Amino acid sequence: MALIVQKYGGTSVGSVERIGAVADRVIRARQAGDDVVVVVSAMSGETNRLIDLAKQIQERPCERELDSLIATGEQVTTALLSMALQKRGQKARSYTGAQVKILTDSAFNKARIQSIDTHVITDDLKAGRVVVVAGFQGVNANGDITTLGRGGSDTSAVALAAALNADECQIYTDVDGVYTTDPRVEPRARRLDQITFEEMLEMASLGSKVLQIRSVEFAGKYNVPLRVLSSFADGPGTLITLEDEVVEQAVISGIAFNRDEAQLTVNGVPDSPGVAYSILGPVAESNIEVDMVLQNTGRDGTTDFTFTVQHVDYEKALGIVREQAEKLGAREVSGNTKIVKISLVGVGMRSHAGIAAKMFKVLADEQINIRMISTSEIKISVVVDDKYLELAVRSLHEAFELDAPIASIG
Amino acid sequence: MALIVQKYGGTSVGSVERIGAVADRVIRARQAGDDVVVVVSAMSGETNRLIDLAKQIQERPCERELDSLIATGEQVTTALLSMALQKRGQKARSYTGAQVKILTDSAFNKARIQSIDTHVITDDLKAGRVVVVAGFQGVNANGDITTLGRGGSDTSAVALAAALNADECQIYTDVDGVYTTDPRVEPRARRLDQITFEEMLEMASLGSKVLQIRSVEFAGKYNVPLRVLSSFADGPGTLITLEDEVVEQAVISGIAFNRDEAQLTVNGVPDSPGVAYSILGPVAESNIEVDMVLQNTGRDGTTDFTFTVQHVDYEKALGIVREQAEKLGAREVSGNTKIVKISLVGVGMRSHAGIAAKMFKVLADEQINIRMISTSEIKISVVVDDKYLELAVRSLHEAFELDAPIASIG
Repeated sequence: MALIVQKYGGTSVGSVERIGAVADRVIRARQAGDDVVVVVSAMSGETNRLIDLAKQIQERPCERELDSLIATGEQVTTALLSMALQKRGQKARSYTGAQVKILTDSAFNKARIQSIDTHVITDDLKAGRVVVVAGFQGVNANGDITTLGRGGSDTSAVALAAALNADECQIYTDVDGVYTTDPRVEPRARRLDQITFEEMLEMASLGSKVLQIRSVEFAGKYNVPLRVLSSFADGPGTLITLEDEVVEQAVISGIAFNRDEAQLTVNGVPDSPGVAYSILGPVAESNIEVDMVLQNTGRDGTTDFTFTVQHVDYEKALGIVREQAEKLGAREVSGNTKIVKISLVGVGMRSHAGIAAKMFKVLADEQINIRMISTSEIKISVVVDDKYLELAVRSLHEAFELDAPIASIG
Repeated sequence: MALIVQKYGGTSVGSVERIGAVADRVIRARQAGDDVVVVVSAMSGETNRLIDLAKQIQERPCERELDSLIATGEQVTTALLSMALQKRGQKARSYTGAQVKILTDSAFNKARIQSIDTHVITDDLKAGRVVVVAGFQGVNANGDITTLGRGGSDTSAVALAAALNADECQIYTDVDGVYTTDPRVEPRARRLDQITFEEMLEMASLGSKVLQIRSVEFAGKYNVPLRVLSSFADGPGTLITLEDEVVEQAVISGIAFNRDEAQLTVNGVPDSPGVAYSILGPVAESNIEVDMVLQNTGRDGTTDFTFTVQHVDYEKALGIVREQAEKLGAREVSGNTKIVKISLVGVGMRSHAGIAAKMFKVLADEQINIRMISTSEIKISVVVDDKYLELAVRSLHEAFELDAPIASIG
């Protein structure tokens, strides 16, 4: 008998019918002999409805009040799911984050979990109950309601699984697992049976938004086996595990890409200490998130400095950079929004030389010009013109043997 | 500087605009130098929306889960009102029933308040904040969310006022006070400046549903001055006070009536001990609420037994009574749904003989036949055919000098 934590997102509980389907799925796990703790999000649309009410009153509402407001969304779902379980003859109890003492810091809207008091849950499980917990929320030491930020229900589920020493944390979504790349770009993309936490982190941060990144970090840190599954179809999903548990490891696990990047370049900056800070400092102070950063030595004692930001921040960043470039006496500032970042991810590349070389050759063979390159221990990212996205992904997918076998395709 | 508890019902907070108007009203009280604690209901329609969701899942949902579900309604309002106050520059904080520890028993859906921990509220008031508390809800000793039953926000407000030793508890509704009778029946009905708790109890239980009856009992018990006012218009409202504080007391304060009564009569029951129980016992066991009960000695060692129930229970009660009447060997069972109960209420009638006689004469002069009479210390009730309702109320209103002076009309 295992202890499973299951998490269902807003779409999975978006109507009373879907809540009923979730109840059926939970009961199947119970019938298989497992104890089940369920973490739920607000019904889809509900959080936005509440935020909209708040914004009608105040453009920037007090964060404490906003958290108390939107936390009601998950509370509603827990009660409804608990009723749906009881209707099917399964004993169940719902809890808010405060009731199971998911203690967080006081950073309203983006609180971090500090501890969970599990004794209420454990007692209920012993009594044969399914425990339904509101995701996304907690309580600070003063008793104020806090929320963990968008997607925080994943984090709630992982934290509960860690605190309860659960055998598996199952994240039910609208996809049936983690894929080698986006199937909308490469129809031969294949569901991975397993992937390591580190690979998953790289995939998630690169735009494969299956899981909230903080929940993956959390799961890795506390060694909680995490599984991504579909709440609309049966199947084994993708298991996210520690590296040493992976038996047969492909060199490359997947190809991630991110369309939402824009590039800014300052050419011919006099190369002196503090140049990078002079440019990026004011950008960061304006709360603009910077992704890739590259600096190359140029000619004549000058340097070329490039970084990428999200599209939404591009114009603002360009203004700041132009101002700084003038102060620094740089030669030229340029920018480009028509780019895409493509990344190979795989823990296997640590022990395999030549992955980068092979990647560059594949792109060269397709006449795709590389604008930027950045590497880390388990990933290689390139920036190319966005028109090459599909061509690049498909070529790499085939070259690194990620394609599904022909026989298994629909 | 006084401490005022203000309570706003669902209609008063039914939209973001109305929540804004409530914020304005709260701030006026602050500007007058008073400390203010606000108790709010769910936005109108919200509780029914949530109950409807629950009923789609389960016809009779678990009461614990239902309470957790519907308690979100008030929580939403508290956060929104707190934001509206902050937007206007007034410091404010919202609290759920659990957060201010409104401790109740575990009778879900109809819990009773046992204690309130006021130190959080007191600290906030000292810091210059308006405290916004969710009405209708509390928490039991296990930490489960409870609700007090429909209209329970009034009770929350009175209990908070009692615990905080507030100077006044103001209940804002869609009427501007307590009237001598229903203005829709008698246009010359007059707003009372004050009324005693006992009179208010009789008025409320007789169908003048301005306040939840339990809140009036509570206010009387703890001697909390209670005022009923309109949230849509300015005015002094009606103050509900202890009898000995009433300076100038009219003999009759008002005329209440109840259209929702049906009469059942058993004639010719052999008059032996236990007859009343034989008839009413099975009725009560079927959860039918009985209002008036009369028993008259009849002829030939038999007795006539009459009682009234709500219309909705009439058919069911009739079936039970027929069965019992047969067992008891009664002569006849009859019933009547076309009746109305009219009551004169006033603490002054204690010291004034002849009120009943005057009432019966007024009705006789209008040729109105009285079917039943029942009296208590501060009220006299008669049951008459429902077609006489308006005539009876207007005649009594004039005869007992309750009419508004002509000059003040329209």
